[in-house]
Amino acid sequence: MNSDPVQQRLDSLTKPRGSLGVLETLVSRYCRITGETLPPQPRQGLYIFCGDHGVTDERVSAYPREVTSQMLANFRHGGAAINVLARQFHIEPVIVDCGVGRPTANFTREPAMTREHAAQLLKRGRALAHSARDRFDLAGVGEMGIGNSTAAAALLAVFARLPVADCVGPGAGLADLTPKRQAIERALALHQPDPADPLGVLAAIGGHEIATMAGFLLGASPLRLPVVVDGFIASSAVLIARAIDPTVTENIFFSHVSAEPGHRRMLAALNATAPLSLDLRLGEGSGAALLMNLLDTALKLYREMATFEEARVSNVE
Amino acid sequence: MNSDPVQQRLDSLTKPRGSLGVLETLVSRYCRITGETLPPQPRQGLYIFCGDHGVTDERVSAYPREVTSQMLANFRHGGAAINVLARQFHIEPVIVDCGVGRPTANFTREPAMTREHAAQLLKRGRALAHSARDRFDLAGVGEMGIGNSTAAAALLAVFARLPVADCVGPGAGLADLTPKRQAIERALALHQPDPADPLGVLAAIGGHEIATMAGFLLGASPLRLPVVVDGFIASSAVLIARAIDPTVTENIFFSHVSAEPGHRRMLAALNATAPLSLDLRLGEGSGAALLMNLLDTALKLYREMATFEEARVSNVE
Repeated sequence: MNSDPVQQRLDSLTKPRGSLGVLETLVSRYCRITGETLPPQPRQGLYIFCGDHGVTDERVSAYPREVTSQMLANFRHGGAAINVLARQFHIEPVIVDCGVGRPTANFTREPAMTREHAAQLLKRGRALAHSARDRFDLAGVGEMGIGNSTAAAALLAVFARLPVADCVGPGAGLADLTPKRQAIERALALHQPDPADPLGVLAAIGGHEIATMAGFLLGASPLRLPVVVDGFIASSAVLIARAIDPTVTENIFFSHVSAEPGHRRMLAALNATAPLSLDLRLGEGSGAALLMNLLDTALKLYREMATFEEARVSNVE
Repeated sequence: MNSDPVQQRLDSLTKPRGSLGVLETLVSRYCRITGETLPPQPRQGLYIFCGDHGVTDERVSAYPREVTSQMLANFRHGGAAINVLARQFHIEPVIVDCGVGRPTANFTREPAMTREHAAQLLKRGRALAHSARDRFDLAGVGEMGIGNSTAAAALLAVFARLPVADCVGPGAGLADLTPKRQAIERALALHQPDPADPLGVLAAIGGHEIATMAGFLLGASPLRLPVVVDGFIASSAVLIARAIDPTVTENIFFSHVSAEPGHRRMLAALNATAPLSLDLRLGEGSGAALLMNLLDTALKLYREMATFEEARVSNVE
């Protein structure tokens, strides 16, 4: 018999061993992170980090920059996709305004922000993780920011040392990727970001919401708060956070492989896999919400299923 | 602008076009099947067809045959995985006893059942689909039956004309696949089932629950009742049903690719794909329940999200 009490309980439930596949893996991992053997149904909070990007001046996005603030209002009125998902899954959305309407500098011409500003945003993210630990048992992270798939692609190129052409994609629906690729290539030539200096990389080519998210991840890890990470842009915050603290992924669940072509490469660079692959490319934490629901369901199965003994079902020897 | 009103509404919601990926595809397909432009949240029923198999005498299963009736009791007491999923997702489970405790004949020695019995079971399944149409807007089909992955593998070998070794797998957890493969090879040599005679194939190597499921699918199709199909064994009922009526898949949603190795081949033989791939190998309709939840969520997004106009968000030209 397995000596891990979580595995013992999983194997005592009326199902063939391991037959719930990924759902069992999610339960094991969640219990290992929280240190609980029979955790309660998690109180769930989904943090949506919002910020604006000066690089939108370079025709890198299908949508105009004002859509970020318009969507922030939509989140607050409950009309966005993530609001519907949050209501359906009993997740509390927490909208984090990281300076919407006050964009980063256009990083093709100057650093996106100062090192001091980047450090402040990391600190704010860490503080938010402490507050999340008090309010929730499971947190999700997602984002909204017109232009932020350009910053995320630039971060991927730097940290995974990939050609920019392998990192850019349509984001919210850009038809011609050439201006996006060229903007990143100019920025990397200008700043020469060094992956061994993650704060410098963040300041040069990051974003306000990406920095705050990275701080959140850095804060959540020592608190053993399980965090579900959304798609391409949220995963780019993991690239930053991991370069600062290599243990940061220990409490992270990656949620889905998005339709953004660089996301698969980003997950590979993070040695990560993700259980869902639904061609999502929305952001807002939508993929994270779907995985939180799956994890919540897995924990419910773990708590509520009858054991072989209780149900008097014959088990294998 | 697209002339399909469902696509028009999907494209009017505050998200980049198509950015909800598979969730949008599910909505489009559901509306096309039901003929509704703005369908209500579906009343959901999950049919779990249970039967016993004489071929268990051939050491084809990791569990003894009495587990089928024990699990039937577990379903009725609400302790099985599918009960937990059904409660979580507001799905009504409908347990269909297709003769538990009265197994099919051992098809390595004689036909599993007579043609007349197979035809009766198809008829019962069709009647159940009519009742489902009155009670529910969305139905799922799953099963329970020790030994039924052997019948399903045999059906795959016949209808997809594959070597038996490519069709067998561990099912609920069989360690040595040799007796299972040999049992099917003996059965196929004995009965020489002809894929052009689906009722004959069903009688020779099918199962009571597989026959009733196939009847359910045949009944649901002309009623335009959307049906979500679970894993390997439920999909084998589609093989039968499609051989009888090639249009039967028009209202079917395949739910997941299971861990059973032959399932991928079975879906390929059906020209089908499935959105979830979670290494499930439980049956009971567990994968179908997860997809029903995803479809229900997709319909909620479709109904409840704000449009660009309502939320005053700038759209692309």
